Amino acid sequence: MKKTSVRTRMLTGTAAVTALAAAGVGAVSASAETTDTPAAPAAVKVDTQNKNLAQSTGLNIDAATRAAQAALDAANKAGQHVSVAVVDRDGVTRVLLKGDGAGPQATESAERKAFTAVSWNAPTSELAKRLAQAPNLKDIPGTLFLAGGAPVQSKGAPVAGIGVAGAPSGDLDEQFAQAGVAALGK
Amino acid sequence: MKKTSVRTRMLTGTAAVTALAAAGVGAVSASAETTDTPAAPAAVKVDTQNKNLAQSTGLNIDAATRAAQAALDAANKAGQHVSVAVVDRDGVTRVLLKGDGAGPQATESAERKAFTAVSWNAPTSELAKRLAQAPNLKDIPGTLFLAGGAPVQSKGAPVAGIGVAGAPSGDLDEQFAQAGVAALGK
Amino acid sequence: MKKTSVRTRMLTGTAAVTALAAAGVGAVSASAETTDTPAAPAAVKVDTQNKNLAQSTGLNIDAATRAAQAALDAANKAGQHVSVAVVDRDGVTRVLLKGDGAGPQATESAERKAFTAVSWNAPTSELAKRLAQAPNLKDIPGTLFLAGGAPVQSKGAPVAGIGVAGAPSGDLDEQFAQAGVAALGK
Amino acid sequence: MKKTSVRTRMLTGTAAVTALAAAGVGAVSASAETTDTPAAPAAVKVDTQNKNLAQSTGLNIDAATRAAQAALDAANKAGQHVSVAVVDRDGVTRVLLKGDGAGPQATESAERKAFTAVSWNAPTSELAKRLAQAPNLKDIPGTLFLAGGAPVQSKGAPVAGIGVAGAPSGDLDEQFAQAGVAALGK
Amino acid sequence: MKKTSVRTRMLTGTAAVTALAAAGVGAVSASAETTDTPAAPAAVKVDTQNKNLAQSTGLNIDAATRAAQAALDAANKAGQHVSVAVVDRDGVTRVLLKGDGAGPQATESAERKAFTAVSWNAPTSELAKRLAQAPNLKDIPGTLFLAGGAPVQSKGAPVAGIGVAGAPSGDLDEQFAQAGVAALGK
Amino acid sequence: MKKTSVRTRMLTGTAAVTALAAAGVGAVSASAETTDTPAAPAAVKVDTQNKNLAQSTGLNIDAATRAAQAALDAANKAGQHVSVAVVDRDGVTRVLLKGDGAGPQATESAERKAFTAVSWNAPTSELAKRLAQAPNLKDIPGTLFLAGGAPVQSKGAPVAGIGVAGAPSGDLDEQFAQAGVAALGK
Amino acid sequence: MKKTSVRTRMLTGTAAVTALAAAGVGAVSASAETTDTPAAPAAVKVDTQNKNLAQSTGLNIDAATRAAQAALDAANKAGQHVSVAVVDRDGVTRVLLKGDGAGPQATESAERKAFTAVSWNAPTSELAKRLAQAPNLKDIPGTLFLAGGAPVQSKGAPVAGIGVAGAPSGDLDEQFAQAGVAALGK
Amino acid sequence: MKKTSVRTRMLTGTAAVTALAAAGVGAVSASAETTDTPAAPAAVKVDTQNKNLAQSTGLNIDAATRAAQAALDAANKAGQHVSVAVVDRDGVTRVLLKGDGAGPQATESAERKAFTAVSWNAPTSELAKRLAQAPNLKDIPGTLFLAGGAPVQSKGAPVAGIGVAGAPSGDLDEQFAQAGVAALGK
Repeated sequence: MKKTSVRTRMLTGTAAVTALAAAGVGAVSASAETTDTPAAPAAVKVDTQNKNLAQSTGLNIDAATRAAQAALDAANKAGQHVSVAVVDRDGVTRVLLKGDGAGPQATESAERKAFTAVSWNAPTSELAKRLAQAPNLKDIPGTLFLAGGAPVQSKGAPVAGIGVAGAPSGDLDEQFAQAGVAALGK
Repeated sequence: MKKTSVRTRMLTGTAAVTALAAAGVGAVSASAETTDTPAAPAAVKVDTQNKNLAQSTGLNIDAATRAAQAALDAANKAGQHVSVAVVDRDGVTRVLLKGDGAGPQATESAERKAFTAVSWNAPTSELAKRLAQAPNLKDIPGTLFLAGGAPVQSKGAPVAGIGVAGAPSGDLDEQFAQAGVAALGK
Repeated sequence: MKKTSVRTRMLTGTAAVTALAAAGVGAVSASAETTDTPAAPAAVKVDTQNKNLAQSTGLNIDAATRAAQAALDAANKAGQHVSVAVVDRDGVTRVLLKGDGAGPQATESAERKAFTAVSWNAPTSELAKRLAQAPNLKDIPGTLFLAGGAPVQSKGAPVAGIGVAGAPSGDLDEQFAQAGVAALGK
Repeated sequence: MKKTSVRTRMLTGTAAVTALAAAGVGAVSASAETTDTPAAPAAVKVDTQNKNLAQSTGLNIDAATRAAQAALDAANKAGQHVSVAVVDRDGVTRVLLKGDGAGPQATESAERKAFTAVSWNAPTSELAKRLAQAPNLKDIPGTLFLAGGAPVQSKGAPVAGIGVAGAPSGDLDEQFAQAGVAALGK
Repeated sequence: MKKTSVRTRMLTGTAAVTALAAAGVGAVSASAETTDTPAAPAAVKVDTQNKNLAQSTGLNIDAATRAAQAALDAANKAGQHVSVAVVDRDGVTRVLLKGDGAGPQATESAERKAFTAVSWNAPTSELAKRLAQAPNLKDIPGTLFLAGGAPVQSKGAPVAGIGVAGAPSGDLDEQFAQAGVAALGK
Repeated sequence: MKKTSVRTRMLTGTAAVTALAAAGVGAVSASAETTDTPAAPAAVKVDTQNKNLAQSTGLNIDAATRAAQAALDAANKAGQHVSVAVVDRDGVTRVLLKGDGAGPQATESAERKAFTAVSWNAPTSELAKRLAQAPNLKDIPGTLFLAGGAPVQSKGAPVAGIGVAGAPSGDLDEQFAQAGVAALGK
Repeated sequence: MKKTSVRTRMLTGTAAVTALAAAGVGAVSASAETTDTPAAPAAVKVDTQNKNLAQSTGLNIDAATRAAQAALDAANKAGQHVSVAVVDRDGVTRVLLKGDGAGPQATESAERKAFTAVSWNAPTSELAKRLAQAPNLKDIPGTLFLAGGAPVQSKGAPVAGIGVAGAPSGDLDEQFAQAGVAALGK
Repeated sequence: MKKTSVRTRMLTGTAAVTALAAAGVGAVSASAETTDTPAAPAAVKVDTQNKNLAQSTGLNIDAATRAAQAALDAANKAGQHVSVAVVDRDGVTRVLLKGDGAGPQATESAERKAFTAVSWNAPTSELAKRLAQAPNLKDIPGTLFLAGGAPVQSKGAPVAGIGVAGAPSGDLDEQFAQAGVAALGK
């Protein structure tokens, strides 16, 4: 590689960055996208001052950890051995806790329940019922339509998903996931 | 599943959401994390009004598409057949364009260059040089240490990565990627 | 490796190329394969002048991008957050747009719907109905039998597939996909 | 799903198809893209009469099978046990022959050599030498920089790749691959 | 599926086996393992002279190629665009032919049908019926319970599987697969 | 890297190890978690003397091999060709035996049955019945809800799973798996 | 399936369980395997009273979470954005924390560093040096030979691994990992 | 690695082959393949009576298990914790034993060493040396060029591979693998 061209590129890159910085990242306008439809409204808000940028909202790691721990604690109190996952709006895992005695199936199950809950912004117990109308929804990669996943919402939009797996029933798993959600409101 | 427990869960969920909403999503404090270290500062800003939330900055789809198109146009002008990828701060693909005549290796190559650039907040031509000190960096899954990837920055932090592959040299690929970055500053 | 043998190989290779070139790539004979069967006729046309070659038809990147953008615009107008994929006749992704606010499940869902539509040359809403007769069709790797995919045809044969995912119903997704197809006719 | 909307979609789809068909698929203009650069020129030719379409050239299955068989025959004559793969311009396998006595490593090795040869339009023995300048090229997914792959060209552009693996040296593998290429010129 | 064609296929299969027997392999003792059980008897024979070794029977590459070509020819005669796979007793692909115009879903579909047929030593049209009793059989990795796969038997034991995919119905696919089996008896 | 910091780290590491060692690994308190619920109690016992550690119980390799061999012997006596897997409490394979003549589908099938049995601490024949209530359980990655898997228990908690596959029915497979379990009691 | 055979199986299973239970799980004999060799001694201790069982030692989830949090806190104090993983002796993830602002490459990088450290019972900074003698060690699946991983030991044997990734250097990452280890000794 | 131990291993390997010859399989010509050719002769024999069939030779499960157990016993005697894999000529795992205390990296490492040894019909310690001439050999999927793999031969052709992993050095691993080979000659 010629050194000259590398320098040129870097200057170009700097110029672009400057332009973005000049545009600023100011006040976040209120999003109008939070309807009560069962669809997947999102936590992305259009930035009114820089035509290139969008802000998205998520849990910080402290909140995500607190929520996961609360879900695990709820399971422990109930004498259940579970794993807990918290994923962000993009389905990426932020926190994973494989509880003592949780089976090997619980980890990916928890992650998929969390992924499913945040994807459709609804508890997976509700989503499982939708399969009666659209049975092939469950063929979408990454999903799991079993009770145990709950969305975390901000202004109605999903910002995270909590998934729990390992208890004898999905109902129990989802109670623990909701305990995780509830911990964020304290 | 008993309907009662489902209703209970939903109320719990609603309570949590209300709590988050009450906390609000206000003014975004300026992040102090944009040092000039070669490390990976990030576009996450702590929300000062809700202890649970963090805002992150990314390109909107219009900007991402415009950047990808600009990179492809630059390649076309130079008579090169390439593919272009734009990924967000989490490495997730936002835009992918497999150009006419681009080889089959170009798609994943472009995505990995973009992933690598946004992960370390530097052009991949620069990152490839770091292998002299830390040769095993290139064993990190998802990465590709070949010129052709460029970060998009906002206030010094990476908010996206643009990757180009398919030209006869990485130098050319990276010129096209930088043309994509530059298009965001116009 | 001996240099001599490399040279020999190259000469051999050149000879082969010459032979192909001599055979030419002339007028494309009309294909007779476009029946109205629900099967998968293809866009491959036998080259009458070179016994080795076949021509296949696809969208160029400008058309594919225009179609994807039109599908995304249609979704935006309807207030929906979706991802859009355009794949070629071989199921390879040409364009991918992850729209603002589209959930994490939408990307692969869109790609699979497009893949499915081009594989059977029919909208996925139609294909989903065929599962009543052949339920295991949906076990074929890479497919997704959910409304939202539409084929792009040239002379009745599939040359591309457009897939949309993220709206509250597959019906909506498919409307947007069809808007993408329609944009190619303008 | 409402039947009405399905019918609407189908009509929309038909309209689009008609538009494409009206545009026609006429004479294929000669491509000007065949330079002698070592880059990756491609076999895609812009269709001058329909702004949406592009034609691409590949081997038909008879030619691909004949080439693969010729490569295998050459290996057999030399007393070697190999596997042979023929991939198209997009790296998709058209023919695979796992020869008698070929080791288990040979199949994917042959496919990757063919993929690599068609991606860069050069024999893999040549491409392996380029690693001296760009060692990380070999980290691109799907590639293998070992002698034994040869491109099939039409008018200088790659239309297929042939890969052979299993002989005691890559030199031998590549001789057999070139025998496959040569069979297309007979 | 029409019952008639299924019966035809089964007769064809039987004919093929007889043909193999007629072709040689010494005196074909009616193997005691060819009961009508749906189990998976195997082609492994204990070597009486070395306590460590077992012999297994498979198709040689010439036979496998001939069978695959015959299946493809049968499809072509019927005006169908398919892909064909021949796998050995261990499910490993020996021959793969992606026919002109075959859709992208056909390759892996053909391989899985062949895998399924050789695993249970029965045509996949028959195996698909067993799902009525054991619906979760189809969750076994690598399988596909769609008509189109046929076992190749020697002395009643499976020595290979032929899979065809891409025709408008599995019935047609399986006719072509059986044509491939029959070609081994000629 | 600076040598100084490496030395510092090592000392830190040593300190941590010492602390753990000082805490000791004493008498294992009896676990109270063995209820008769169909859930997934686990073989982890809290260590009362070191707040950091937990003990888990598994089969040693001699026992696991003996169990696998007993399962295979039982199949051989019944004239069946099967594969056998023994996994530990975490679903990790300890022993795998691909029996003579076992089909290619049997290996992963056996592993998944063993995984499923140890995950829910019940024979897979029982677990398959639960799908009537919770059909989507079978979508959890790694599982297979076919008879043929049996848990190995210690004090009621699962410590291993044995899976068998390849016989004409899951009932037979599970008899062989149970023969493997029984061999541990001799 | 016949109910009778199921009952029989269950009785057999119960018998086996009883046998195991009768054998008991008594005092854990001191392991003699803790040499100072750089090899991979393990935390498995032979159970002297039940010939089938072995005990293995791991961190409980409270300890694993505390260690992960300590590592993340150390990074935060240093102004670094990292991800942290804690894996058990079998390389299975127990805790994963994707810190605020950590790049997308950090998650799997952290898990692999932890996996590598527990596999060889040494910090990855030390292990990276071994590549001078055995460069292909780094080709073992699941590993990453970059500083940032540290083993947790009990009586000299590895019981867990902590991996950190995301800081500008592996040295920093490993300081944070060691802070996690040290937290277990408090 | 010490050259002396390599020589020892090779002698051991030769001894094993002789032992196999002594065991029968007709007149076992002392194999000439321990020449220095790196090729991969194979155990497939053309069936002279049926033009379609070929016979291949492998270990039966009893022999494979005996060999694996012998390798594990040798490791145990040396106080090492390892995993052992035996694969057939097609690289398919026949036996897997994850020894007590073997690290999580050992399983796939053992399988890949066995795969590599049977693919090239040579101990992996020898194969690792070939990388000096052909460094990219190690990029072939499924392989691992670390000492610890040994081929099992019949009449000079590879019929199986034994891989061992987990000891502090590959030299030790390969001694144990060779002990497994030697056990077949007893």
